[in-house]
Amino acid sequence: MYEDVELRLPGPTPVPPRVFRAMTQPMIGHRSGDFSALYRRLVPFAKELFGTSGEVFFLTGSGTSAMETAVANLVSPKDRVLLLTCGNFGDRFGQILSAYQADVDRLEAPWGQAIDPEAVIKKLRSAGPYKAVFVTHNETSTGVVNDLARIGAAVKEYGRGALLVADSVSGLGGLELRMDDWSVDVAVTGSQKALMLPPGLALIGVSERAWRAIENNSSPRYYFNLLKYKASAAKAQTPYTPNIAHLFGLAEAFQMLQEEGLENVYQRHFLMRDMTRAAMRALGLELLAPDECASSTVTAVKGPEGLDVEEMRKVIKERFRVQLAGGQGSLKGKIFRIGHMGYAGPKDVLTTVASLECALSVLGYDFQLGSGVRAAQEVWLEEVRG
Amino acid sequence: MYEDVELRLPGPTPVPPRVFRAMTQPMIGHRSGDFSALYRRLVPFAKELFGTSGEVFFLTGSGTSAMETAVANLVSPKDRVLLLTCGNFGDRFGQILSAYQADVDRLEAPWGQAIDPEAVIKKLRSAGPYKAVFVTHNETSTGVVNDLARIGAAVKEYGRGALLVADSVSGLGGLELRMDDWSVDVAVTGSQKALMLPPGLALIGVSERAWRAIENNSSPRYYFNLLKYKASAAKAQTPYTPNIAHLFGLAEAFQMLQEEGLENVYQRHFLMRDMTRAAMRALGLELLAPDECASSTVTAVKGPEGLDVEEMRKVIKERFRVQLAGGQGSLKGKIFRIGHMGYAGPKDVLTTVASLECALSVLGYDFQLGSGVRAAQEVWLEEVRG
Repeated sequence: MYEDVELRLPGPTPVPPRVFRAMTQPMIGHRSGDFSALYRRLVPFAKELFGTSGEVFFLTGSGTSAMETAVANLVSPKDRVLLLTCGNFGDRFGQILSAYQADVDRLEAPWGQAIDPEAVIKKLRSAGPYKAVFVTHNETSTGVVNDLARIGAAVKEYGRGALLVADSVSGLGGLELRMDDWSVDVAVTGSQKALMLPPGLALIGVSERAWRAIENNSSPRYYFNLLKYKASAAKAQTPYTPNIAHLFGLAEAFQMLQEEGLENVYQRHFLMRDMTRAAMRALGLELLAPDECASSTVTAVKGPEGLDVEEMRKVIKERFRVQLAGGQGSLKGKIFRIGHMGYAGPKDVLTTVASLECALSVLGYDFQLGSGVRAAQEVWLEEVRG
Repeated sequence: MYEDVELRLPGPTPVPPRVFRAMTQPMIGHRSGDFSALYRRLVPFAKELFGTSGEVFFLTGSGTSAMETAVANLVSPKDRVLLLTCGNFGDRFGQILSAYQADVDRLEAPWGQAIDPEAVIKKLRSAGPYKAVFVTHNETSTGVVNDLARIGAAVKEYGRGALLVADSVSGLGGLELRMDDWSVDVAVTGSQKALMLPPGLALIGVSERAWRAIENNSSPRYYFNLLKYKASAAKAQTPYTPNIAHLFGLAEAFQMLQEEGLENVYQRHFLMRDMTRAAMRALGLELLAPDECASSTVTAVKGPEGLDVEEMRKVIKERFRVQLAGGQGSLKGKIFRIGHMGYAGPKDVLTTVASLECALSVLGYDFQLGSGVRAAQEVWLEEVRG
């Protein structure tokens, strides 16, 4: 029985019962008025989440399908683009760009650090122009959030017309995104992170300014062709049969986010981040990312000295029923990651920390049992007391 | 309230309660042993359904995403291919092939007719060679099933090595597919038809013989890259976050198909086809496809003389609570289509026919009320009596 395992991954995340109930409504025809009514109900809040007066489309696919949609619609072979990467998912953007034969220039930050907006300005001035700049909003592999507001301002001022594309797969819904204010032209996200759905649905926001590049793009695309999405959106439909169950669920998830209020949602994620970080520090564990760029949806922690991280993940899952993520790429075996996004709150952080303490104790790690939980409680109390 | 509307579309189709229940199991990590166990449970029956000892992969996307996966992995720009088309979804294959800059030769049959295997042989001999031949197994837009066994034999004998790709989106699970026996190299299907799931998942079967072309293909692809799927399948995983809820549901749908027995499943679909066709004839309505190539998952019916088909569809949906599909492309406004696949049986045909009769009666169509239902009953009784 895996059903009593708490999922504390940076996706998939737990699905709220009311979202599951919404997903199991009887199917409707995707060319019917019933579907268009659902579609029209989803659009306004989707735009609010993306912070755009542009368009938001619903793609039936994983987050990666939305990343590829951005590339396939904006990049023609040999187009010169700038990739800002500080982790595994930045690198994935690079792989997709290479598959589409883009001429990719890279600006990297070490894994665990954020992209420096000043370095972006320097790069744009010294090595531009680029057709587009690709950046990860929230880097899932390292628990780092990039300063998209400043990067957007840099691209706007020094980019000589370059478009800015942001992967917010593990960000949107858990941390703020303001496409229009930050000059982000295309942003993508997935359903299985802060949006509280199972995987299988992706969203893409497109600014008014991006359409000219999309219209003139020569890369082969059909399923990912945004022009077809735009034409269908005018009828409140999708060009291909959409993931109706997920869209039913999305309407319910949107309802939950609206009931809580987006400001409160973001605040809850900050609280979970701060509780998690305080707990890790109290346990003597080292955090991968510094405070200034620490993600509010996922925290990466270096493995305790002398302990096998993968063994620890096994013990905490099998004995104490919490599933944590391991490291990716070069960080495999060196870190573990705690997801705290979507359908999760401060109490979930407490049980996660408590279970982690139990696993550490079993493995002979030297610390005071309960000290991590107490540190997290203190952060929570501080927030509650104001 | 749309919940009391019976969905008799050629997809999406009704989802069985036990499939919905399976879909709402708590999420699992897609890089965990829990997921690999699910994956391994799905593969053997998926292969049985496709009739192949090759590989079957699970794609997170609509049926169209699987069609594009076939094209993106087999066709490089300027590759010469043969498209066999007799309807809207054959034409869709053509659009995808054009998007990938294939050099497309076409062999068409009129909408409502099947592709003639003899004409395929002639074409292959006179105009070949082709890198691949693309064909629709079950043409959703016209209710026509192509003789894939004979077309496969033709391509094998006269194709000079051409690969055969079949779109069985509205076929597989409702009608037999035997990839290996019929020399089909790649076949695709979607979840929302005879497989009884919501839309959002697609399956693709790949023969051993297809891999060389896939490995040597130059079209840009990342999300649709079958080489990545193959590598991940070796670990019982998918390369990108899969639609876990749908895969949970698929395991339950497979269980249902196994409990009934595939032979019985196909027989039930033949019965629904025959009941539907007998009823339409008894009502004096003309069938689009002749008996020889009539699909067992969807029946296309010409609009009754003097009646507005779209008005009729509106009346049957709003007043008698059954949703039928209209015509596509050049058949829009001229036909209506009755879906009878997946989670459906003879009783559903009876209520559909009865509701259709009620709508026709309201609209002043001249016929004997109950005559269609009786004709369908007679077919059912004949089957039951053996």
